[in-house]
Amino acid sequence: MNHSHPFIDRITDRISTHNHYICLGLDPDPAKVPSHFTKDIHGIRSFLFEVIEATKDHVICYKPNISFFEALGIEGLHLLIDVRQQIPPTIPVIIDAKRGDIGNTSAMQASFLFDTLRADATTLHPYMGYDSLAPFFNYTDRFHFVLGLTSNPGAELFEKQPMANGQMMYHHVISHCSKWHQHHGNIGVVVGATNTEIEHVRAIDPQLLFLVPGVGAQGGNYQDIAKIGKNLDDLLLINVSRSLLYLDNKTTYRHAFLDSLSNIISTNLAGTAD
Amino acid sequence: MNHSHPFIDRITDRISTHNHYICLGLDPDPAKVPSHFTKDIHGIRSFLFEVIEATKDHVICYKPNISFFEALGIEGLHLLIDVRQQIPPTIPVIIDAKRGDIGNTSAMQASFLFDTLRADATTLHPYMGYDSLAPFFNYTDRFHFVLGLTSNPGAELFEKQPMANGQMMYHHVISHCSKWHQHHGNIGVVVGATNTEIEHVRAIDPQLLFLVPGVGAQGGNYQDIAKIGKNLDDLLLINVSRSLLYLDNKTTYRHAFLDSLSNIISTNLAGTAD
Repeated sequence: MNHSHPFIDRITDRISTHNHYICLGLDPDPAKVPSHFTKDIHGIRSFLFEVIEATKDHVICYKPNISFFEALGIEGLHLLIDVRQQIPPTIPVIIDAKRGDIGNTSAMQASFLFDTLRADATTLHPYMGYDSLAPFFNYTDRFHFVLGLTSNPGAELFEKQPMANGQMMYHHVISHCSKWHQHHGNIGVVVGATNTEIEHVRAIDPQLLFLVPGVGAQGGNYQDIAKIGKNLDDLLLINVSRSLLYLDNKTTYRHAFLDSLSNIISTNLAGTAD
Repeated sequence: MNHSHPFIDRITDRISTHNHYICLGLDPDPAKVPSHFTKDIHGIRSFLFEVIEATKDHVICYKPNISFFEALGIEGLHLLIDVRQQIPPTIPVIIDAKRGDIGNTSAMQASFLFDTLRADATTLHPYMGYDSLAPFFNYTDRFHFVLGLTSNPGAELFEKQPMANGQMMYHHVISHCSKWHQHHGNIGVVVGATNTEIEHVRAIDPQLLFLVPGVGAQGGNYQDIAKIGKNLDDLLLINVSRSLLYLDNKTTYRHAFLDSLSNIISTNLAGTAD
């Protein structure tokens, strides 16, 4: 798809300006918030606002996982709205929600994520098929990352099951995402995997946008993933959460973040990032 | 599993008292709320409270779908807490949420559903495998329905894909749920399908508890589903939402509900229920 899309336009601009693919995961965990913030909702808010202020001129986009906000109680969802409001409108916000239900219910989920929480993009479970996803895709100015191949051990059980046609299930899912993207123009896939697997998925479609959830956990590193994961337009999103959020900062969070970002994008960090 | 479980104990009691399997889906849709209620959150609250008052001595359990509450905005989630509070503690509440993420994030989702919203049970997406579900299963006193075979057209695409071993994907998923239930004792499956398919799934495990989302849509009817879907302990949950919630009542909602419930459980309603 070469049509302009507001999400693609913005990440294209930012990737060419910053020359990396890092999406910052905003997963507030009270147990990990630096000790000079209180552990309550006010402390977490101050922490996240400091993070946004320090990182907004350096990251490609943000990916708050809604579950971390929900775990703070209903007030956590008010905080998510405030966090989204705090992020400048030029920076896309992917609300990682992993939704998907029957059609009329998916429409309700989409309304919550896009109308109430004002997400620019979200993540979706493919299990129930096309009609469970279409109500999201029909938000044409938003972007939708369908779970393709995830990096957790449980991916072996269903995602990597061989099918009668010789493909694994994840291959079948991603092939369909590729077709849907041809039609809708606003679909990408979540691919968290070894380098070999990312190369395999890239071979399915050279143009599909990948959201890669983290570097290092499978022994991959940023430079390798960037090379094999980017699409024909040199677009890719590599999410890093804990390794850029919870830093052992001797000076300021901003300095610690810039040091860590620089380390991630320029060196082999196998096993050190989440 | 013959161990006692608080969710199973309560539905066993209620099924033997009421002699049917009906779970009432609480899916508040402002467009469908009767005209004598206001369309805002206050009117929806009054409507749901009236529904609970009229139905609490007649249904086996309730299944609010969280997405319908989210679609009302954050105040919709406060309403869900109030609705849950309004339901007597003897009646189980399944919060239909269709969650599932990587392990530490699933733990956050489980905390929101079980600690904040006080669900007795929920629904889960199997795609990411066991470690994405285990944080839910570890809430040992709650019950967990994993999506097996759904009734929407999109079920053809992935759930019904034939695999290399000759089984369809849903069969593989449900076989694993059966094994997990042997270990954890608190797992059921969502099976919405034709009668032939329900019979096929029942043959996988005679004991696994089914949550069947609605009768009629695929030409099945309550009596047939009850016969083929119940487990060895005569347990089964058949959810009905719209057909028992939004009634054309000439007298009171209570009368209309009792008439409709009686019609559903005693007669062939193919094509008329949701």
